[in-house]
Amino acid sequence: MPGAGRARRLLHPCPQPPEEPPAPEEEQDLLLAAAYVSDAQYNRNIPFETSPRAIRLYYFYNHWTMRFATYFFICVDLSLALFEEPALFPVPFLATSLVEVLCLTAFFGRLIHFAKVTPQMVFWKDMKNICIMVAIVLTLIDLIIYGSLEAVNIHSIRWSRVLRPVFLINFPESRQIRRAFRSIRNTLPDILYVFLLFMFNMLIFSLMALKLFGDRDLKTVEGSAYFTNILEIAFELYVLVTTANSPDVMMPAYDFNWWYSLYFITYLIINTYIFMSVFLAVVYNNYRKHLKNEIRKLAYLKRHKMLEAFNILKVKVGTEFVVKEAQWRRLAKVVAPDISSSHLELLLRISDEGQKGHVDKMNFLRLADLLNIQVVTVNIKRHPLEAWMPQLYQSSASLWVQKVVRHRAFVWVYDVIILINAIFIALEEKNPFISYAEWVFLFLYITEILLKLYTFEPRVYFGRKQFWNWFDTLIIIAALVATVATTTIQPARKYNSQQILDIVLVLRILRLLRVIVSIQRFRVIVTTLINIGPAMLTFGGLVLVVYYVFAIIGMEVFHGKVRFFGPNATTPDALVCGNPALKDSAFARDKYCKNNFNNLASSFILLMELTVVNQWHILAGGFALVTHQAAKLYFIGFHVVVVILIVNIFIAFILEAFFVAYSLEKSEVETAIEKKIQELRMGIQEEEMQDGKLIDNVESKDSGFHGDDGDNKRKTLKGLYFRIASKKYRTVDTLLQQMFESEIAPEDETPSLDEILNFSPSDIYPKNPSFENSA
Amino acid sequence: MPGAGRARRLLHPCPQPPEEPPAPEEEQDLLLAAAYVSDAQYNRNIPFETSPRAIRLYYFYNHWTMRFATYFFICVDLSLALFEEPALFPVPFLATSLVEVLCLTAFFGRLIHFAKVTPQMVFWKDMKNICIMVAIVLTLIDLIIYGSLEAVNIHSIRWSRVLRPVFLINFPESRQIRRAFRSIRNTLPDILYVFLLFMFNMLIFSLMALKLFGDRDLKTVEGSAYFTNILEIAFELYVLVTTANSPDVMMPAYDFNWWYSLYFITYLIINTYIFMSVFLAVVYNNYRKHLKNEIRKLAYLKRHKMLEAFNILKVKVGTEFVVKEAQWRRLAKVVAPDISSSHLELLLRISDEGQKGHVDKMNFLRLADLLNIQVVTVNIKRHPLEAWMPQLYQSSASLWVQKVVRHRAFVWVYDVIILINAIFIALEEKNPFISYAEWVFLFLYITEILLKLYTFEPRVYFGRKQFWNWFDTLIIIAALVATVATTTIQPARKYNSQQILDIVLVLRILRLLRVIVSIQRFRVIVTTLINIGPAMLTFGGLVLVVYYVFAIIGMEVFHGKVRFFGPNATTPDALVCGNPALKDSAFARDKYCKNNFNNLASSFILLMELTVVNQWHILAGGFALVTHQAAKLYFIGFHVVVVILIVNIFIAFILEAFFVAYSLEKSEVETAIEKKIQELRMGIQEEEMQDGKLIDNVESKDSGFHGDDGDNKRKTLKGLYFRIASKKYRTVDTLLQQMFESEIAPEDETPSLDEILNFSPSDIYPKNPSFENSA
Repeated sequence: MPGAGRARRLLHPCPQPPEEPPAPEEEQDLLLAAAYVSDAQYNRNIPFETSPRAIRLYYFYNHWTMRFATYFFICVDLSLALFEEPALFPVPFLATSLVEVLCLTAFFGRLIHFAKVTPQMVFWKDMKNICIMVAIVLTLIDLIIYGSLEAVNIHSIRWSRVLRPVFLINFPESRQIRRAFRSIRNTLPDILYVFLLFMFNMLIFSLMALKLFGDRDLKTVEGSAYFTNILEIAFELYVLVTTANSPDVMMPAYDFNWWYSLYFITYLIINTYIFMSVFLAVVYNNYRKHLKNEIRKLAYLKRHKMLEAFNILKVKVGTEFVVKEAQWRRLAKVVAPDISSSHLELLLRISDEGQKGHVDKMNFLRLADLLNIQVVTVNIKRHPLEAWMPQLYQSSASLWVQKVVRHRAFVWVYDVIILINAIFIALEEKNPFISYAEWVFLFLYITEILLKLYTFEPRVYFGRKQFWNWFDTLIIIAALVATVATTTIQPARKYNSQQILDIVLVLRILRLLRVIVSIQRFRVIVTTLINIGPAMLTFGGLVLVVYYVFAIIGMEVFHGKVRFFGPNATTPDALVCGNPALKDSAFARDKYCKNNFNNLASSFILLMELTVVNQWHILAGGFALVTHQAAKLYFIGFHVVVVILIVNIFIAFILEAFFVAYSLEKSEVETAIEKKIQELRMGIQEEEMQDGKLIDNVESKDSGFHGDDGDNKRKTLKGLYFRIASKKYRTVDTLLQQMFESEIAPEDETPSLDEILNFSPSDIYPKNPSFENSA
Repeated sequence: MPGAGRARRLLHPCPQPPEEPPAPEEEQDLLLAAAYVSDAQYNRNIPFETSPRAIRLYYFYNHWTMRFATYFFICVDLSLALFEEPALFPVPFLATSLVEVLCLTAFFGRLIHFAKVTPQMVFWKDMKNICIMVAIVLTLIDLIIYGSLEAVNIHSIRWSRVLRPVFLINFPESRQIRRAFRSIRNTLPDILYVFLLFMFNMLIFSLMALKLFGDRDLKTVEGSAYFTNILEIAFELYVLVTTANSPDVMMPAYDFNWWYSLYFITYLIINTYIFMSVFLAVVYNNYRKHLKNEIRKLAYLKRHKMLEAFNILKVKVGTEFVVKEAQWRRLAKVVAPDISSSHLELLLRISDEGQKGHVDKMNFLRLADLLNIQVVTVNIKRHPLEAWMPQLYQSSASLWVQKVVRHRAFVWVYDVIILINAIFIALEEKNPFISYAEWVFLFLYITEILLKLYTFEPRVYFGRKQFWNWFDTLIIIAALVATVATTTIQPARKYNSQQILDIVLVLRILRLLRVIVSIQRFRVIVTTLINIGPAMLTFGGLVLVVYYVFAIIGMEVFHGKVRFFGPNATTPDALVCGNPALKDSAFARDKYCKNNFNNLASSFILLMELTVVNQWHILAGGFALVTHQAAKLYFIGFHVVVVILIVNIFIAFILEAFFVAYSLEKSEVETAIEKKIQELRMGIQEEEMQDGKLIDNVESKDSGFHGDDGDNKRKTLKGLYFRIASKKYRTVDTLLQQMFESEIAPEDETPSLDEILNFSPSDIYPKNPSFENSA
C-alpha cells in the first residue's frame, strides 16, 4: 500500500520549517494577489486601486460586517414605508425623517468608501454611483420640502419614496438583481414589436366587437350596456387576454346567438394562447442569450483576475514562471483564513501534482475554483457510546437494534405511522382519545430519532450537509414544542395568543412532510427545488423592487378611497366600502373592501392578487370608480410589467434551471479533486445511486445518512476523510459557469478587459446551428 | 460568359435520343425504387411487400383520392355526433346508424387494402390495425344493442361513440397526431411523481386550512360555511392553483385577520408558480427529448429507404456502384410526374456533378431531399402591356407612375389612408358623409392594386409563393363584396340575413390588417406564426380528440340537466336554468345557463371555456349541484388532461418552434442547389435583407414583390430562372430533420431497420454536456 504513508503524512502534516517573516513589500504583493483571488472566487468585479492603502480599504470594504451594515440600512430605509403616512404603525414624521437621514448618511458613507477604493475615473463613469448620489440628493430635497410644508400644515406628496429601491439595486452587493433588471431591459426592444402587433390585433378585434355587438342592445349580467364604447371594449378584451373575465364577457353575445362564440374563441386562441406563448418564447430566448453572455463575461473576468494574481507572485524556475509552494500556501491562508491545514494540504497536492515544490500557471489559475468546491472533512470516529461502554454497545441485543434501525422496513413502518397520524389530525380533536393519540405519535417520533442517534454517530448524523436529518429533527422538535404549547396555553386563554396557536397548528401539520424524506423521488424533486432556491431569491428582490414602486404610487393615488369596516360590519357605509361611488359595483358585491392601498402590507397583498391575475378587472374597476377611469392604466401597467415580463422571466429561469439540473455532470476541477482524494486513499465513496431518478439525467445521488445507505462500508474505515460536498447544493450560476469554463481552452489568449466588458450576445450565437444546440 | 451556353442548353433541353422501352422486370424495379424514394420524400414509413401486385396496390393506397376518402369518412363519422341525440340537428336514429355503418365499411375497406399491401406478420403485430378492428367490432355491437333496445322503446347509452377518435388517431395518415399522443404518453411517468408530490403538498395545506379556519365560524361571501369540510377545502385549493377563485377564497380569512393572507400567498407561490413551472419544465424536457429521438428515427429511416432504392437500381461502373443517368431520369419522372423538364435537368446537374453520365451513391441518397426543396421556376417576361403597347408603357408619364408606385412613400401614404379608414369605421355609420367615405376608401384601395398590377408583371405579382400579395388582394375584394352587400342587403331586410351581414362587417374590418403588410417587423412575426401553423394543426387534431371524448361523456352525463330559455326569459324557471337545484347558485347568478352539454356545439364551447380555466369552478359547481358532487372529478380530470398536459405541450411546442426559427440557416442540400443555380447563371438573387430583424437570428428575408424591393434589378434579365422558394415556408419538422441529417456523416454505417425502430431517447442524450447544449 504505497499511498498509505503519503496519506498519513498529509493527515498529520509534518511541522513546517519555521519560515522567515516576509518582507513588507512582499506582504503587500501577497495581499493584492489574495484580493484578486478572492474576487475571482466570489465573482466580484470591482476595479480597485493597487496602492497598499487602497487594498487595505478594499479588504475592509468587502468585510462581511460592512456588507451586512449596508443591507441593514437598505432594509430599514425600505421598511420606513410601514411607518409613514398611510402607515401600518403610525410614527411621527420627525422620527421617520431622522431615520431616513441616518440611512442616507450610511449610504453616502459606503459610497465614499467605494470612491476611496476604486480609481477616480472608474468611479465617475459608473452609472450606479451617479444613481445613488442623485437619489440621496433628491430624497434630501423632498424631505426638506415636505417637512417645511408640513410645518405650515400643508399636506404634500413624499414623491422621493419611489426612489428607495434605487439603493437596493445599485449597491455593488446586488449584482444578481441588477443582472435580472439588465435582462429585462435587454428583452424590451424585442418584446416591443410583438406587443405592438398584439395591441394592433386587439384594436381590430375591438372594432369588430363594436360593429358586431354595439347596435344589438345587449345587456351584461349586471344590466349595463354591452360593448357600446370602444375604450371599454378594448379594456374588456385586454382583460380577456388575461382570461380574468373569460366566460362572462362572452355570455350576452353567446346567449343572443351561439354563432358569436366563434368570435371569442378565435380571439382567445390568437391572443391568449399564441401571443402569450410568443411573449414567453421571446423573453426566454433573450434571457438565455443574455445569460450566456453574462456568464461568459464572468468566466473571462475570473480568468483575468487569476492571471493578475499569478503575475504578481510568479518567479522564474527553469524556463517557466511558477509560484513557490510557500508563497502559494500563504496566499491560500490569506484568501481562506478558516481553511483546515489538511484541506490546504490536499489542495496543494492537487495543484502541485509532481511535488516539485511549486505550482505552475495552469494549476494556479484553478485556485479560485478549488477553493469554491466544498470539501467536507469527515472525521469518522467511533460512536461515543461504543467508546464509553463498548461491552453493552456491541452486545447482541444492541447490534440487533442497530440492524433493525438500519433496515429499510424501519422507514416504511414510520411512513405508515405518519399517514395514520395525518388521518388523526383530519379527524375532530374534541374526542379525548384522539387527543391522547397525539402524545403517542410524538413519543414514537422521538423514539425514532433517539434510535437513529443510537445507531449512527451523532456528529455524522448532524453533519453540516445532512439537510434531511436536520429537517427531520427540527420538524419533530417543533411539533413537540407545539403540542406542549397547545395543551398548556389553550385551556388557559382561549384564542388570546391566536397567532402563536396558529403557528403551533401549522408546525404540527408540517410534521407530515417527513414522508417526503423517505420517498426517494420526492426527495430528488425537493432537492432540485431547494437548489434553485437561492437564485429564486433574486426574483424575490426583483419583485420587491417593482412591488415597492407600485405600492408607493398606489398609496399616494388610492389611499383612503376604499375602507374596510371589519368582517361583520353591515352598516350601509360598510357595504360600499365607505365610498358611495362603489354602490352596486362588483367590487363591493364581492366584498373586496379590504383589498385597498391604505398601508404598505395591504398594498403588497393587493399587488400579489393582481399578480395572480384572476379578478384583477374587478379590483381595477373598483378603484377606477372611486377615482377616474384612467386609474385602470395603473393596473394595466402593473399587469404588463409583472405578469408579461417578470413572471415570464421567472418561468424562463425555472425552465433553464431544470434543464441545467438535468444535464448535471461533475466539473473538470471536481473530477481532479476527487481523483486526487482517491489516489491518496483518503476518500469516502459517495453514496451509491439509489432507486430510480426523477428524469433520466437528474442527479439522484443523495448525501443523507438515511436508512441503510452504505453506512456500513464506511464504518470499517477509521480516521479523517474527505468527501466532495454533494453537488446538489451548487447553484445554477456556478453550474453554468463551470460548463462554459470547460470550453475555454486553458492556453487560450484571454481577451483584454475592455474586450471582455464589451462582449455582445450575438458573438456567441452559434454560426452553424447543429441539431444539438437547437433542438 | 462560358456558363451561358450551358445554361441555354438546360433551359431548352436538347431532344433526348429516343430510348428503348424498358423491359417489364426493369419496369418493376423502377416502380419499387420509386416507391422507396417517394416514401423517403414524404417520410412515409409503411413496410410494404415487394411483389409487383403489392407495389401497384401500394401506389393506389398512397394515391391522394384514397387518402382524401379516408379523411372524408373520418370527418363524417366524427360529425355524426351533431345529428345523434342530444342533437344540434336531430335526425332519426336509422339515418345516423346507416351512415355510421357506411363509414365503418369504408374503414374496413381501407384496412383490407392495407393488409394486402403490407406483409402479414407486420400487419398483425401493428397495434394500430388491432385498435381499428376492435373499434369497428365494438361499434357494430353497440349499434345492434342500442338499435334493438330502441325498437322496444328502452333508451340506453351509445357508449361506443367515445371510440370514434380511434379512427382519427390510428390510420397511418395521422402520423403527427400519433406522435403527439406518444409524446404525451412518454411524459406521463415523469410527470406522475411531480403530480403526486403536488397532491401531497395540497393535502397538507388542506389539513392546515381545516385546522386554521375550520373552527372560526367564518362565512363566504355567499354566506355558506368557510373551510369546514376537508374535501371541499381540497377542491377549493385545487381551484386556487388554477387561480380561478383567487382573491375570493382568501377574503373571509383575510377579513378576519390580515396575517392569514400569508397562508394563501405561500400556497400560491409554491403551487401555482413553482409547481406549475415545474410541470412545464418536465413536459418541455420530455417533449424535446422524444422529439429528438423521433426525428433521428425518421432521418435514419429515410436513409435506409434511399439505400434500398439505390441497391435496386445500381450497376457497376469501374470500381463503384452507380445509377445510370437514363435510369435516374426515369425514376425521378415516376416519383414526381409533374416535374418540369428544366427542373429535372437542374437536379441531374447537381446529382451528376462531373457530367459522367451516372449518379454515384452519395448523390443518389440526396434525391429525396432534392425533390423536397421547392424550386420556383420564375418565368420573367415583359409586362403584357409593354408587349401590347410598348410606346405608351415606356412613355415618360407611364415610367413616372411606375416609379411612384415603387417608391417607399407610396406604401406609407396607403398606411395613413388605412389608419384614417380605421377611425372612420370606429365612428358612427349613420352619418351619410361617413357612409360615402366608405366608397372613397374602397376606390383608393382598388386603385392601389390596379397601379401595382400596372407596374409589376401580373403573373409574377400573383406568383405561387407571393403570400402577402394574395392576402392584400383578397382582403380588398372581400371588402368590396362586403360593402356592396351592405348597401344592397341592409335596406332591404334589416337583420334578416344576420350572419351574412356579420361576416361582411368582419371582412370590412379585416382590411385594416393590411397595415401589417407594410411594417417589416410585423410581417416577420406573422410569417413565423404562419410557418408554425401547419404543425399547430396537429394540436388542433389532438385537442379535437380529447374534446370529442370529453364531450361525448359530458353529453351522456349532464345532458338536459341545465337548460337555456332564451336571452330575455325572466320566468322563475329560466332564472335557475330549468333546474331548481341551481337556486341561489353562482352558476345561475352569473347566467351560465347556455353553458351546457345539450349538444355537441354547446359542449365544445363549454370545454373551451374550461380550457381557458377562469370560472371553471363555478361551471363545475353548477353541474355538481344538478347531479352529484362527484361530477367535479370530470372537471378536474379535464383540467389535468387539457391544461396541465396538452396546453403545456402546446407551449413547449411554440417555444421550440420559435427557437428553431431563430437559428434558421440554409441546409446543406439547399446550399448545393443554390450554388449550382448560381454556377449555371440561371439564378435569381433572393431579395436582400430588409430593415432589421425580429430577433437577432430570425430570418427576415421575404419573398414578397412588395414596395421597391430589388425588383428593378430583376427586370433587366429576361427568360427562365430558378429560385429556391423562401425557406420561411418550411415546417419546423423539416428543419429539425435537416439539422439532424447534417450530423449523420454520409459514410456512416446505417443501423439496421430493427435498431432504428428501437432507438431510445437516452442514446442521444449528450454524455458530456457542454455549455452550448444546456444553456
